[in-house]
Amino acid sequence: MSVHTQYNRNKENIGRLLVKCQDKPGIVAALSTFLYENEANILESSQFSSEEEDGMFYIRFEYYLDDLLMKRQQLENAFSKIAEKFEMEYTFTYAIKKKRSAIFVSKEIHCLQELLWEWQSGDLDTDIAVVVSNHEDGRALVESLGIPFYYIPANKDIREEVEQKQVALMREYEIDVLILARYMQILTPNFVEHFPNKIINIHHSFLPAFIGARPYERAYNRGVKLIGATSHYVTNDLDEGPIIEQDTERVDHRNNVPTLKKIGQQVERRVLARAVKWHLEDRVIVKDNRTIVFH
Amino acid sequence: MSVHTQYNRNKENIGRLLVKCQDKPGIVAALSTFLYENEANILESSQFSSEEEDGMFYIRFEYYLDDLLMKRQQLENAFSKIAEKFEMEYTFTYAIKKKRSAIFVSKEIHCLQELLWEWQSGDLDTDIAVVVSNHEDGRALVESLGIPFYYIPANKDIREEVEQKQVALMREYEIDVLILARYMQILTPNFVEHFPNKIINIHHSFLPAFIGARPYERAYNRGVKLIGATSHYVTNDLDEGPIIEQDTERVDHRNNVPTLKKIGQQVERRVLARAVKWHLEDRVIVKDNRTIVFH
Amino acid sequence: MSVHTQYNRNKENIGRLLVKCQDKPGIVAALSTFLYENEANILESSQFSSEEEDGMFYIRFEYYLDDLLMKRQQLENAFSKIAEKFEMEYTFTYAIKKKRSAIFVSKEIHCLQELLWEWQSGDLDTDIAVVVSNHEDGRALVESLGIPFYYIPANKDIREEVEQKQVALMREYEIDVLILARYMQILTPNFVEHFPNKIINIHHSFLPAFIGARPYERAYNRGVKLIGATSHYVTNDLDEGPIIEQDTERVDHRNNVPTLKKIGQQVERRVLARAVKWHLEDRVIVKDNRTIVFH
Amino acid sequence: MSVHTQYNRNKENIGRLLVKCQDKPGIVAALSTFLYENEANILESSQFSSEEEDGMFYIRFEYYLDDLLMKRQQLENAFSKIAEKFEMEYTFTYAIKKKRSAIFVSKEIHCLQELLWEWQSGDLDTDIAVVVSNHEDGRALVESLGIPFYYIPANKDIREEVEQKQVALMREYEIDVLILARYMQILTPNFVEHFPNKIINIHHSFLPAFIGARPYERAYNRGVKLIGATSHYVTNDLDEGPIIEQDTERVDHRNNVPTLKKIGQQVERRVLARAVKWHLEDRVIVKDNRTIVFH
Repeated sequence: MSVHTQYNRNKENIGRLLVKCQDKPGIVAALSTFLYENEANILESSQFSSEEEDGMFYIRFEYYLDDLLMKRQQLENAFSKIAEKFEMEYTFTYAIKKKRSAIFVSKEIHCLQELLWEWQSGDLDTDIAVVVSNHEDGRALVESLGIPFYYIPANKDIREEVEQKQVALMREYEIDVLILARYMQILTPNFVEHFPNKIINIHHSFLPAFIGARPYERAYNRGVKLIGATSHYVTNDLDEGPIIEQDTERVDHRNNVPTLKKIGQQVERRVLARAVKWHLEDRVIVKDNRTIVFH
Repeated sequence: MSVHTQYNRNKENIGRLLVKCQDKPGIVAALSTFLYENEANILESSQFSSEEEDGMFYIRFEYYLDDLLMKRQQLENAFSKIAEKFEMEYTFTYAIKKKRSAIFVSKEIHCLQELLWEWQSGDLDTDIAVVVSNHEDGRALVESLGIPFYYIPANKDIREEVEQKQVALMREYEIDVLILARYMQILTPNFVEHFPNKIINIHHSFLPAFIGARPYERAYNRGVKLIGATSHYVTNDLDEGPIIEQDTERVDHRNNVPTLKKIGQQVERRVLARAVKWHLEDRVIVKDNRTIVFH
Repeated sequence: MSVHTQYNRNKENIGRLLVKCQDKPGIVAALSTFLYENEANILESSQFSSEEEDGMFYIRFEYYLDDLLMKRQQLENAFSKIAEKFEMEYTFTYAIKKKRSAIFVSKEIHCLQELLWEWQSGDLDTDIAVVVSNHEDGRALVESLGIPFYYIPANKDIREEVEQKQVALMREYEIDVLILARYMQILTPNFVEHFPNKIINIHHSFLPAFIGARPYERAYNRGVKLIGATSHYVTNDLDEGPIIEQDTERVDHRNNVPTLKKIGQQVERRVLARAVKWHLEDRVIVKDNRTIVFH
Repeated sequence: MSVHTQYNRNKENIGRLLVKCQDKPGIVAALSTFLYENEANILESSQFSSEEEDGMFYIRFEYYLDDLLMKRQQLENAFSKIAEKFEMEYTFTYAIKKKRSAIFVSKEIHCLQELLWEWQSGDLDTDIAVVVSNHEDGRALVESLGIPFYYIPANKDIREEVEQKQVALMREYEIDVLILARYMQILTPNFVEHFPNKIINIHHSFLPAFIGARPYERAYNRGVKLIGATSHYVTNDLDEGPIIEQDTERVDHRNNVPTLKKIGQQVERRVLARAVKWHLEDRVIVKDNRTIVFH
């Protein structure tokens, strides 16, 4: 996995521009000339064109511009002309404006632990604004770090009421990204549509194998020789959303369900942490049900 | 993957004993005392007990015994008493008696090539007696090694007739193991029941994901971040037989179906070669729909 | 990596027997008959013979015996005859008697965190008796878990004095195993000889590459495409002791020294955790400068 | 490993441009505008700047331009002005002009086999013009594919004479890249300087571990838990040239030197094949003793 290099620069002056449009001659020239003329220095750029399929073009720039925050509005205004010409969809984001995240968790807190750890060591560039759980297991850890912890009991009979509380909380805390770190409740379409491509889940199998409940039991019964985990954006089709990252680990006949779970937890935590990191750094673009990840 | 060490010993005197029975105190003592008293020196032993599930005990011995071929009958006779006492299922095999194999292949011959290559370099301890194909692509390669190549055109309309020919051929060549090295025809239950746990297939996906046809296309459409391959024994449930080996390789958004296939072929060939090797060395025990692999 | 299965058994009645001797016919028979006659039921057994090199035989048994703690002395006494006959070196250990460990750490606490985490989740079967550091960074974490933390400043000028304090501490806490979780001080031969094959170190490179100081800087300069970590027993030859476990991770030209370190820390923590786990479960046998690991 | 996607385009019209210069604002804009104005459509672009170290900028373009071969000279001429302004080092290459390669091999031909195989299946975009060996082992295979095979016995006493013959042969066959596929002879500085960054070697260890002779024996003696292979450009420092690719595979105490070799051969062949493929596609840039690989 690659980790990138711009550590020393003044974060206030770092911006990102993501662009998606129909592929045409001259796009890179137009974009890079725009950045140059606006005195933005390109730190990193990645592009992809899906020419054989639908002819779409995708690019991500990370750039450095002195006094970026002052010039920001002017830059975005100037860009709108290029965007119009090429019919681009685009997003400007600013490194200084950290995304605000909420973590949802149930009884098993290993993924929560990993995220908090990576966050403490500076690898996850986010404000963890709130943790929500239908169990109390994570409270001590979360509160010890000064993060608010909300215990909201949940089950399918009170789903609507629970989700109303959760949506209200997400609004109160102005959440940009919602991380399901082994939150073992199904979310309704109504909830999901509040956060399109903003809910990241970790599923404890190598999707599309073992969609749904109890994947380790089913992996055991099928006698697989590798187990896996998958991090994906949540859509209304259970475990069918765009995949951000996957990984596997070798197992053998000596493993039973509890030991598969132990091994799987290691995979889950690293897969989720990578996916969240890439999302926070605006490295993931969703294209239908697939992702382009510029890591 | 481990490769084992007995290279120098006189192969004529190497035997293997596989045993399966209800777990009880004294089994290892009885078996190892039996081997000791019959002057068989244990070269390698591996055991497994599935105590929490069904209390079964599995063991594989590889041993060295001077004049094994002369003493073989006597050894097997003597063993029958122990086997009776513990109600054991068991198999004696002899390293000198190579299994005879048939390879079935269609248009894509990369798995065939890998098997022939490993066989030439001494890693697959088998007599490759015959290659059968519904295409002519492999003929030159196969015949250049002095192996008979049978072209038997196949499609679903003439399946019965084709399988009759194939079964006859397997009998004629006294085949012990039948390797489907990307043979793209479905075998009927009638064919399969002639060769229980003796047909090894390579499926070009990480089962149980993408069972059936066109797995690379479906992997592409699902946007997976790893692709895999699975080698398994063939049963009458398509792609549902006991898994012997699996592996995966990382891919990304830049891959299209042709490049997924290229990467996948590398995985297929190493997964199949390992599974065949382990089968030939009597390292695989089938337990319901799972395998115990003593590699 | 395999994790094994005996979770439910009464731990009081689980014992382990490790044996090393010249390979001869009849050893397995003698050992398994001994266990059987003493009513010990074998849960797991692994063996290895280095026949081609020096003809040594190694075996590890994990067994279950009702009232083991009461029968323990009698069992060991009875064994001494077999041991004498075959000139065996051997060790009896008892699952109920957890090894007592000390963790040494400096400024970077990621390996300490991983060990504490695995220990809390029940994966490291040890009493962590004390943590020693030449920095204060780990204190809050360690004390929050009720483990004594000793700050002992260290540098090469006061090495002798520091080591005297440390040895005294190890005695006071009756330490069985000493884990160097990125302790960045060199230990003297005098210190090391107090703890033969009982000090486990993590070195932040794929040994024997980059022995000594600043391995990530040197890996960067050499332009390697993978970085690694190595856990080994400490001997008086710096970074030359018997290797227990190693692993690697892919890097590329975009990585600089700080990002190599970040990636490397993930490798270090999992490599050390595995090595410590295997040591605690008596799965590691040292053979000259190599290890046999029955995992 | 990623394999890229442009399969269907008319190869005649595909070109590549590699550029290296001091990083300055406006480079990407200048280059992409140049390509756009010359009607070259960018298929793939990858860039890297080593800002923290020496402020160098590297970029690789793959582009499509109708009638490229006719416009080629004009394009290169036009570019010279930009190159001058930014003080660029640069290379134009053309997909239609395959590199001509020579393979050097000794007794062990597994790497040769892998290269020939990948070449036959269209994955190595080269003309294999000649194979040179100090043994006869590869002759039958090589000649069966219509490739000239030269047997040139070699040893250190006749090195100079041998190398003269080899250099003459390389000239006769107009060789662009020289692949040492386990050629077990040391090349003199005199030979090497004829082919700067054009000789690709496979070393059978994870460099810088086990530089020099007999790496598997030394890996065995050191008791490593992974073995590796390294492909690198040859310089006059033995096994010290810029690394293109490395990989490792897990081994354990059961492996002896012959089985380490078997496992290692699998690693060697895939590592060399990747490195050669990337070199042939102009994906590798040498920067001091390191490589930038745009795969």
